[in-house]
Amino acid sequence: MRKDKIPSQEAITRKPFPASKKVYVEGKLHDIKVGMREIELEDTTIHLANGEKKHEKNAPVTVYDASGPYSDPNIEIDVHKGLDRLREDWITARGDVEQLSSITSDYGKERESDSKLDELRFEYRHKPYRAKKGQNVSQMHYAKQGIITPEMEYVAIRENQRLDEIKDLGPQHPGQNFGALTPKGPVTPEFVRDEIAAGRAIIPANINHPETEPMIIGRNFLVKVNANIGNSATTSSIEEEVEKAVWATRWGADTIMDLSTGKNIHETREWVIRNSPVPVGTVPIYQALEKVNGKAEDLTWELFRDTLIEQAEQGVDYFTIHAGVRLKYVPLTARRITGIVSRGGSIMAKWCLAHHKESFLYTHFEEICEIMKAYDVAFSLGDGLRPGCLADANDAAQFGELETLGELTKIAWKHDVQTMIEGPGHVPMHMIKENMDKQLRDCFEAPFYTLGPLTTDIAPGYDHITSAIGAAQIGWYGTAMLCYVTPKEHLGLPNKEDVREGVVTYKLAAHAADLAKGQFGAQYRDNALSKARFEFRWRDQFNLSLDPERAIEYHDETLPAEGAKVA
Amino acid sequence: MRKDKIPSQEAITRKPFPASKKVYVEGKLHDIKVGMREIELEDTTIHLANGEKKHEKNAPVTVYDASGPYSDPNIEIDVHKGLDRLREDWITARGDVEQLSSITSDYGKERESDSKLDELRFEYRHKPYRAKKGQNVSQMHYAKQGIITPEMEYVAIRENQRLDEIKDLGPQHPGQNFGALTPKGPVTPEFVRDEIAAGRAIIPANINHPETEPMIIGRNFLVKVNANIGNSATTSSIEEEVEKAVWATRWGADTIMDLSTGKNIHETREWVIRNSPVPVGTVPIYQALEKVNGKAEDLTWELFRDTLIEQAEQGVDYFTIHAGVRLKYVPLTARRITGIVSRGGSIMAKWCLAHHKESFLYTHFEEICEIMKAYDVAFSLGDGLRPGCLADANDAAQFGELETLGELTKIAWKHDVQTMIEGPGHVPMHMIKENMDKQLRDCFEAPFYTLGPLTTDIAPGYDHITSAIGAAQIGWYGTAMLCYVTPKEHLGLPNKEDVREGVVTYKLAAHAADLAKGQFGAQYRDNALSKARFEFRWRDQFNLSLDPERAIEYHDETLPAEGAKVA
Repeated sequence: MRKDKIPSQEAITRKPFPASKKVYVEGKLHDIKVGMREIELEDTTIHLANGEKKHEKNAPVTVYDASGPYSDPNIEIDVHKGLDRLREDWITARGDVEQLSSITSDYGKERESDSKLDELRFEYRHKPYRAKKGQNVSQMHYAKQGIITPEMEYVAIRENQRLDEIKDLGPQHPGQNFGALTPKGPVTPEFVRDEIAAGRAIIPANINHPETEPMIIGRNFLVKVNANIGNSATTSSIEEEVEKAVWATRWGADTIMDLSTGKNIHETREWVIRNSPVPVGTVPIYQALEKVNGKAEDLTWELFRDTLIEQAEQGVDYFTIHAGVRLKYVPLTARRITGIVSRGGSIMAKWCLAHHKESFLYTHFEEICEIMKAYDVAFSLGDGLRPGCLADANDAAQFGELETLGELTKIAWKHDVQTMIEGPGHVPMHMIKENMDKQLRDCFEAPFYTLGPLTTDIAPGYDHITSAIGAAQIGWYGTAMLCYVTPKEHLGLPNKEDVREGVVTYKLAAHAADLAKGQFGAQYRDNALSKARFEFRWRDQFNLSLDPERAIEYHDETLPAEGAKVA
Repeated sequence: MRKDKIPSQEAITRKPFPASKKVYVEGKLHDIKVGMREIELEDTTIHLANGEKKHEKNAPVTVYDASGPYSDPNIEIDVHKGLDRLREDWITARGDVEQLSSITSDYGKERESDSKLDELRFEYRHKPYRAKKGQNVSQMHYAKQGIITPEMEYVAIRENQRLDEIKDLGPQHPGQNFGALTPKGPVTPEFVRDEIAAGRAIIPANINHPETEPMIIGRNFLVKVNANIGNSATTSSIEEEVEKAVWATRWGADTIMDLSTGKNIHETREWVIRNSPVPVGTVPIYQALEKVNGKAEDLTWELFRDTLIEQAEQGVDYFTIHAGVRLKYVPLTARRITGIVSRGGSIMAKWCLAHHKESFLYTHFEEICEIMKAYDVAFSLGDGLRPGCLADANDAAQFGELETLGELTKIAWKHDVQTMIEGPGHVPMHMIKENMDKQLRDCFEAPFYTLGPLTTDIAPGYDHITSAIGAAQIGWYGTAMLCYVTPKEHLGLPNKEDVREGVVTYKLAAHAADLAKGQFGAQYRDNALSKARFEFRWRDQFNLSLDPERAIEYHDETLPAEGAKVA
């Protein structure tokens, strides 16, 4: 096994995209500036009848940018110090948090006092924040009181991508949105607030992750993409994971999940969060299981609770909690072809069967809500009984759990805890919409966050594609965030190139969904790229694409001459 | 420029897939045997309570196999002699064809008498067949008379993949087929005949391509995939094109189109057809244009007619003919972002504008039909005005042309000429179904054959995926054949690995569509693979996949130990 390794500055990718520069849009309600990427275009050459040429300007195109400060060459970043704490003032200004004198979880303290870990530790740690007694610091809580937080204005500006500044957006087909409240014009901060208050959207924004650039997950906003990273018992170092996180956001990952199951999970997570410009999600039960050496039946509420606090104080923005795996649903999986494939689901099912009672996630759900609202961690209610193959899709176990997730959503909302719902898995195309419809109905329009779904089981090695087909569809039907699948799915652990392939594949699926839903201005970039294509402005075609490097590389393979890039 | 090169035996891939053997199913009506691939599976190990193990057999899985004799190690193949002429006896036994003493096209004769081409020529040429005067040798003509040809029985057996021999097919979700006549059980030869007679399906099977293994294209059958090959002015040799054709069928291409635009098109085509086990399509106008040195306005009906005969006598199974590009539609494209992007479409539009009259494809359509039925070449009525970007989707030009294609279908059917209709292009997801619905209505359920469609324009380098999303959907809605798109689309010419990537991507999209339509037994392979996955029978999981080599490679990257492949 390799020795773990902390990140060196050089290991982190910071190269800006070609012809791109970082631009910032300022807030009107709050003192904020929202980073975006502006792509410069070449002129169109028009050949006049008299043989002369005329040049016509093409306006630059501004695009959504998940990569944070990494893509701004004017910002100095020291991976050992972490990113600038963008939101810290916003958080403290609200007057409802206190800074603790130290971390409070037992496990966190244990790791802190272990001097063997000194060489792996992220040094520049800050003391954690927590809501003052009796306070609720969730964005949902503020929204319900009618407050527009800086986070809410930030995401409104971010969603608009400066399309609101363009006089003529050009042609765009009206969308089909299945009853969603898709804004017909630019997103306003008020709309963001209302959507969050209604539970239809969330801004994952732990008060202990002030480095995060706020982003919104909801059916009436742009479809988002999550990328999973994380070490395992056999591979990866802290350095690799931090770079994978930065790398994933470079290609457009809107959130990342750290699914580490190897050694030094606590320390790895600290490094990742301190350097992540996007919200970080985890599945706390994974780490809890490591703490009991992999024996599911030894898990306890106390140990799990301590893990939640440990991670909340590090700044995890959302927790996958498989509280819907109820005892009564477990026997419903017995006749499936692939049983229970969710790791969290099978851990909890094992626990339930061993103790023959409802899981502590379910029985202690309100206590979990208390923790969540003290740090503004959002729920991602896990689909522990999701189908692992087409045959098991939409069965009683899966749909039973979904109904329970709806009940839990109501409880979470009672506590003003932001909540999204996880979804399948493996589903044939014609059965995808049923998932979306049922989720909207049973979970009261809480945002849906799905893995794929894969639309066939016979293409391992290409499951980023089998699942992108399903992901694009379910995004169109109303799913708010798509969890990416890499080409290594079912086969092995993704390397950096797999992460890129997975993220870009899911970005294009998410964008296809935005176009189909009819999101405001969604077609603008497509039109600009198509115009460049028609005018043989090759460089603009590359630069406007989701992956300019690959477009150039593929072009140059057969037509490398520089002359072949201009009309 | 490289010197052209004829194929060497070694350049042709023949390696069988792992754990696979070729099996043949015999006909009941005709003396035929239909090749398929049987995948052997390992036993399931069951751990008994007493600590002992039990082994349970897993039945082998038979799958559709487009690769022809190449994947049968018992068959000797000499690429210089071409494949066995499987269908020659079937064709001559019908008594309605005559063997000509020589080829009849002027261009063909010219090439034949050019001794400079001797070194490039395919030597073992056979004299062409043609229908006897007054006869019609199309499969549609036979079907309308109630005849079940060997070709029809062949495709019925082939479609069933021996699923009709399995007592318990296991679970399968009922499909949603939008009013198609999807068979609820095995396909019968009678059903094939009826579908062909009704024009809802075609068997592209030129009497001069007796090497082809019959396959069927129709909404009520398995969704098929076409792969484009072909040289260009700057790249490729005959050897490469023949290997690309064989390689494409290895990964599952059901037909190939030879879109050569470089030198020695005539000779390249001869090599490809003689060695192709699948139907070969072309766009004759491409070659015709080469004959007039690229000047569209110099094209004439006589030259085009000669090209049709030249290619029909070589054995091309279907012709893309852009006869729907009518003069009145051309101005409708003026305000598009990307104008006319179909190469054939822009050639014909140029001709129409230059001469200010309807194209010779349109005005001589009945004469074209006469040629088609004398060789049983099928129409693939080209969509010359398909959209080249999302903005141009479903516009008046595109839909006007589609209506004209419907009128032409009626004329083709009057001549009993088999006909399919080409479709877009670039279409956002929510506008795809309108294409299918209109095509079914306007073209009287003639099979639809679409390129993608791409569902966003912003991902060059990933357009096999942007288009697979659309292809899977339109396949589900009723499209009979999907024309693949490779990762090089819009950027450059595909190499062998791109062909593989494109074909496998489209096979999985086609299969996702079959599952959604509810094709008989479509889920059987998914179930078998999922069972293998659940039981950690890694080798079976690889072997049952569409691309076993990639699955193994990806697996071994992180877990190369042999032990990691068994449970």
